This record gives sequence, C-alpha cells and structure tokens, in this order.
Amino acid sequence: MANIENPSDFDLKVFGRQLISARRRWPIISWRAASTTFKSTDLQVELNKQPKKKPAVSELLFEGMKAYRGEDNQVRLFRPMMNMERMHRTAHRACLPAFDRAELLECLRRLIDIDREWVPKSTTASLYIRPTFIGTEPSLGVTKSNHALLYIILGPVGPYFPTGGFTPVSLLADPKYVRAWTGGVGNYKLGGNYGPTIYVQNAASKEGCQQVLWLYGNDHQVTEAGTMNFFIEGTCDSTIKRFNPPWSNETKSAGPGATGEFKVSERTFTMADVLKGLKDNRVKEIFGAGTACVVCPVNRIFYDGENYLIPTMENGPDIAKRFLKELTDIQFSRIIEHVPIIIYAAVHVCMLFADRLFAKKKKVKETCPFEIRVKSKSMGL
Amino acid sequence: MANIENPSDFDLKVFGRQLISARRRWPIISWRAASTTFKSTDLQVELNKQPKKKPAVSELLFEGMKAYRGEDNQVRLFRPMMNMERMHRTAHRACLPAFDRAELLECLRRLIDIDREWVPKSTTASLYIRPTFIGTEPSLGVTKSNHALLYIILGPVGPYFPTGGFTPVSLLADPKYVRAWTGGVGNYKLGGNYGPTIYVQNAASKEGCQQVLWLYGNDHQVTEAGTMNFFIEGTCDSTIKRFNPPWSNETKSAGPGATGEFKVSERTFTMADVLKGLKDNRVKEIFGAGTACVVCPVNRIFYDGENYLIPTMENGPDIAKRFLKELTDIQFSRIIEHVPIIIYAAVHVCMLFADRLFAKKKKVKETCPFEIRVKSKSMGL
Repeated sequence: MANIENPSDFDLKVFGRQLISARRRWPIISWRAASTTFKSTDLQVELNKQPKKKPAVSELLFEGMKAYRGEDNQVRLFRPMMNMERMHRTAHRACLPAFDRAELLECLRRLIDIDREWVPKSTTASLYIRPTFIGTEPSLGVTKSNHALLYIILGPVGPYFPTGGFTPVSLLADPKYVRAWTGGVGNYKLGGNYGPTIYVQNAASKEGCQQVLWLYGNDHQVTEAGTMNFFIEGTCDSTIKRFNPPWSNETKSAGPGATGEFKVSERTFTMADVLKGLKDNRVKEIFGAGTACVVCPVNRIFYDGENYLIPTMENGPDIAKRFLKELTDIQFSRIIEHVPIIIYAAVHVCMLFADRLFAKKKKVKETCPFEIRVKSKSMGL
Repeated sequence: MANIENPSDFDLKVFGRQLISARRRWPIISWRAASTTFKSTDLQVELNKQPKKKPAVSELLFEGMKAYRGEDNQVRLFRPMMNMERMHRTAHRACLPAFDRAELLECLRRLIDIDREWVPKSTTASLYIRPTFIGTEPSLGVTKSNHALLYIILGPVGPYFPTGGFTPVSLLADPKYVRAWTGGVGNYKLGGNYGPTIYVQNAASKEGCQQVLWLYGNDHQVTEAGTMNFFIEGTCDSTIKRFNPPWSNETKSAGPGATGEFKVSERTFTMADVLKGLKDNRVKEIFGAGTACVVCPVNRIFYDGENYLIPTMENGPDIAKRFLKELTDIQFSRIIEHVPIIIYAAVHVCMLFADRLFAKKKKVKETCPFEIRVKSKSMGL
C-alpha cells in the first residue's frame, strides 16, 4: 500500500490500497483500564505515531465509512452515528471498553477537518475511513483486554465502477459455506468474520463468479452478497424485496427505505423463493448495496451446479439506479434542501447526523409498492 | 506482560503473561509472494527484530505447544508435527502461504535450542510456544494476502494447578452461545475463533461458573469445554467416552487413546445423554484436556437454570489421574523406554517426532473398556 504525501498524488482507480502518509496520519486513541468509558479528556489523538501493537488473540473490530465532498465544497459523512452505534455494540461484544459515541464522532470529525484536503474534489470519489479498535492485552491467554488501541485509517478512494456505469457481478451460492450463524457474532463488525471469507471468495472465482452469495440453514436462506446487503426487486406477491437478517453484517444505514422514496420489506427468504420468482418472471432486479460499492447489480447466480440468469441489466436496472441516485444525492448533498446540515468547525468540514436527518427529513411522496415488514426475530446474540 | 532477561527471573505462577525478552527473542519468518511454499532458503529467522505489522483484516492464526525438560535434562516437544499439520491446514483455510512443515519444525527446534535455558528445570513447568502466522497485506480490502509474517513467541509457564493437585471447574452450558458451526471455521486455529469467546467466558463467570461448555444445534450437542477437549468416563452402555467433533478446535494429539492405554470412543452426544447418564449414576468422571491445563476435572454443569453435580472428584478421579500421568509421562519422558527420542543438535535439545513415536510405541496391554469409534462425518469445511 502506497503512503501518499500529497493529496494530488493519489490514484482513484484502486480501492483501499492507498493511505494518507502513515508517518503523519495515524491518529491513535489509546485506553488503559483506569476508566471503562472514553471521555474527551481521556482521548489522545497522536498524529505522529504509528500503531505498533498487534491484537493478542484477535479482538479486532472496525468500521467502514466515507467522507464526501459536495458540489458546495462542504465535506460530509453519511449517517456516521449509525457506524458509531455499531462500533459501540461490537466493542461490547468483543469485551473492549465502551466509549462515548458522540465524542468519538467528534474526534473523527476533527481528524477529517485536519485532513480535509484529502477528500477528493469529485462527486464519484470519497475519503474512505476505517476506525479500528484492537485489544492489546500483553498476554497469550484468552482473556479480557485491559489495554486497547483505537485508531482511524484514512485513504482516498475512487468510484467502485471507474466507468461511472453499472458493471453487474455474478454470485456463487454454495450452502457449504456459512458466514454467520444463530448464536454467533456475524452481526458484529469483528475482524474474525472477514478473514475466513477470503477462501470462499477464491472458491467463487474458481467457479467463474465474482462474489459470494451467503446462504444459511438447511432451507438455504439468502443472507448477504459478499459484504453487501442483498436486495430483490420484483412484482408484488410473496417475493421479498430486501433481506437483512439480524445476524448479518451490515447496518441498515444504506437504503432509500430510510429516505422516504422506497419502503423495504425485510424478511427471511430462501433460494427456492428466488428460483421460483425467476421462473415466474417476477424477479426484475437483484443488487447489493454497501459502503464501498454503493450499489452493485447482479446478473447471475451459480447455485447447485446451475447458472441462473438475473434480468437486472435488461430491466434498466431502474430501481438499482434510483437507489444509487437517492443514496449519492444524500451523500453529496444534492438533495440538501431535504436535510439540515450540521456545521461544526465552520470552514470546509461539516457532518450530517443520522438522527437529526431522520427526524427532519422531508417525506417524498411517491408510489410505494413495497410493504415494510421488519423481522424482530432475535438471532445472533 | 513482563519481558524477562534472565531465565532465573521468571515467575511460574502466572500463565502466559511472561515472554522471553522481546528485544532478543522474536524470531521472524517473513514471506513474500515470490514463492508459494516455504523452503529452507526462504526462511528468515531474525532474532533481533520485533514484529510490527498487524493483520489487515484478521488473517491471524496460531498454535499452542510446549517444550518439556525431562529428568534426563533433555528438552522435548510433545507430538509437534501434529501442530505443524494443523497450522498448515489452518494457513490453507486462511489463504496464507503453504510452508514445509518439517522445515518449520526444524526452525522451531533451533529456536528452542538457542533458548533452551528458558525451559524450566521442573517436571511441573514447561516452555509455552506460540507459533503465529499473520497476513500483512497492506490493503484495507478483504483480499488474499501477498505478504505474511510467521513468528514464534516463547514464554516459560508454571503448572496450571500450582498445588500439583486437581482443582475441579464448573461449566456454563448455554445453547444460546455457539462457538463453531457446520460450514464455518471452528476446526481451524484462527484468531477470530477466540476473541468472541471472552464475552461468553464473562457470562459464565457471572453465572458462577469457571468455564464454558460449548453446545451446538437444536439438540444441544456437547462439543468442547473452554478450549479443551471434553471427556466423559462412565460405565458402558450408550454413554460416550469422548467427543471431539470434526469442526472442533483441538487436534487429536492429546489423549492416552493414542498411547495405547485407553481406547476412546468419539461420537456426537447431547446434554440429554449427559443428564440421563448422571441420573442413572453411570457417569463417573468428566474432565477436559488441552495443552495449557493438561487435564482439568469438572465437578458441576449449569444448564437450563439447574446445577448438575458431577461426581468426578468423588471417583478419584481415577481415570483423569491416569490420563494425566500417561500424558505427562510422555511429555517428561518418564516412559522413555517406550519411545525413541530423536536427538538433533546433540547437547540439550532433542525432539520427539509424533509419527515416529506412533510407529514404534510399545503397546500397553491393559483392560480397555472403551470402543474406538471415530466419526468421519464431514463437517466444518
């Protein structure tokens, strides 16, 4: 990974392989067992120090966020408090110390303010943000850490699709690989959930597929695509529009469902449901959505030895494009009139708070063919 | 963790919190993508360098081994090739580079030869060995590492039970916590399998228990106790003697089953089986066995809101003690007449190779009430 000294030197064509010069830019927040909660006075943001400690047993957790520069030259985050909330939940599960979510967000905001020139002047690129939290207990035993290290990595990233258009991906759906399970930790952003997926991603490549569609259970429930939420758009009947089980990985941060244009139905569905929907020509589009790719159409699923073609691209993809537009309009503040912007340190950095956004957003009245049905089934932990 | 400069300075009363001085003792074997397999010429053992890299996404794996100083002052490992085999399997699953198992063992042997004075002159203490292998790909993406780092941490450890006697532990058996699952990676020694157990270990403490008995499935199959294999000794009928499922954590390295004294039946059994065995007074002893504790008796299981007392201590525990004696007799070479010792670099260091040991061991003829039934059911991956 290249360490880049100057904002104008970075190459937007590669994702996540460039960091802002490590000599200057690793902010470190270190914690000792003296307190159990971060307070602003406990926070140490050491810009001149590179983290050297390794997690002892793999109490490693992280978040993935982006900062966007709007056409008004303001820099914004997208619903950052939801990332703080998930990071806080994950820290609890990892037995790492609790922290004040608003304080951490304020640290992050200050860091980005300092580094604001690194946020690309582009509406298709952004600054990727990787808050990371590791246990650094100096013991070989599997015990709760009394030492922890929280640091944030920044690096500019270009558009996931360099052409600006949609490039569809194919998915391997093989039930022998299980990413998350009832009673486990798949609903937390723990490092240990990601390492084992590389092998499965390689298996997908060997089968000529680009990503993994993770299945679960004897009935082959559909859960996630790669590290993205999985969406199906189709004509109404029992077909499911969106599925994001409680033990899955992603927050519900993405999605026009929360912006007002779409309503999203979330419930359990199986590969049999998907195949029946395809056979009956009721499935119009399938796509994934996540922080890195934003929205990613799916054109093929390889399952049980057969290729199933998905007519996503043939159908526009109308919904996926609207979904992408809605998301990026918020991220780059093109629908700024709908949302209040919380400006902090004046100058170039400001942030959009999820909760305020949610409270004040203007309702977009539009035909909404989808019913909201959020499952409250308690899986994960 | 204290770094200790002198072999006579270490405190054997704490487990895994002392390392041999990090300034001198971190051997590093680093690998670049130029080759996909370690060869002796590729190996770099750098004794003067402390590892500074962190795993990118948590491709972290490790082994746990010990070196023992026998009464003859020779230093031995216990079936080390089985650890090399498991580490090799785990590296494959983690998409880290393959290595030559015998070469790595030879590196380890040389390292211990150099540090042989750190192996305690005691038949109740040993040198703990933690081979660790991490992906150090400098990318934020979830991708196969082209850079990896293999290093070995050493630290003297005292007896798990300072008194030399058995101190029984109680277990929390709560099916809502699932450690390993079909289709997952619980059968590999990946760091990500261990971090999440700390929370559950804390939950056990809150319930007044010392360890976790991991259950699996709707029928509450018994899998592991903490990080130990789980053993039941009882009068014959359908009661199971030992259970070590293919997706579990531990190798089959431990256990007199492989030494000839005992035969061990391995098969799936449930909490209902255990409770029925207890009710019928057929369960005599329950204990765990692993590298750290060697053998650890169980006197209570808290399950479904009830405490179930286990008569392990009331029954001696005869089998657990014989089991411990058999294991430590091999480890400290008190049954040296049964096994060939492969002496390498002459002087003080020699090693016991698992495969040669297995091939030449003298059979101990003794009443063996246990049937061997190794399940070949393919779970895990």
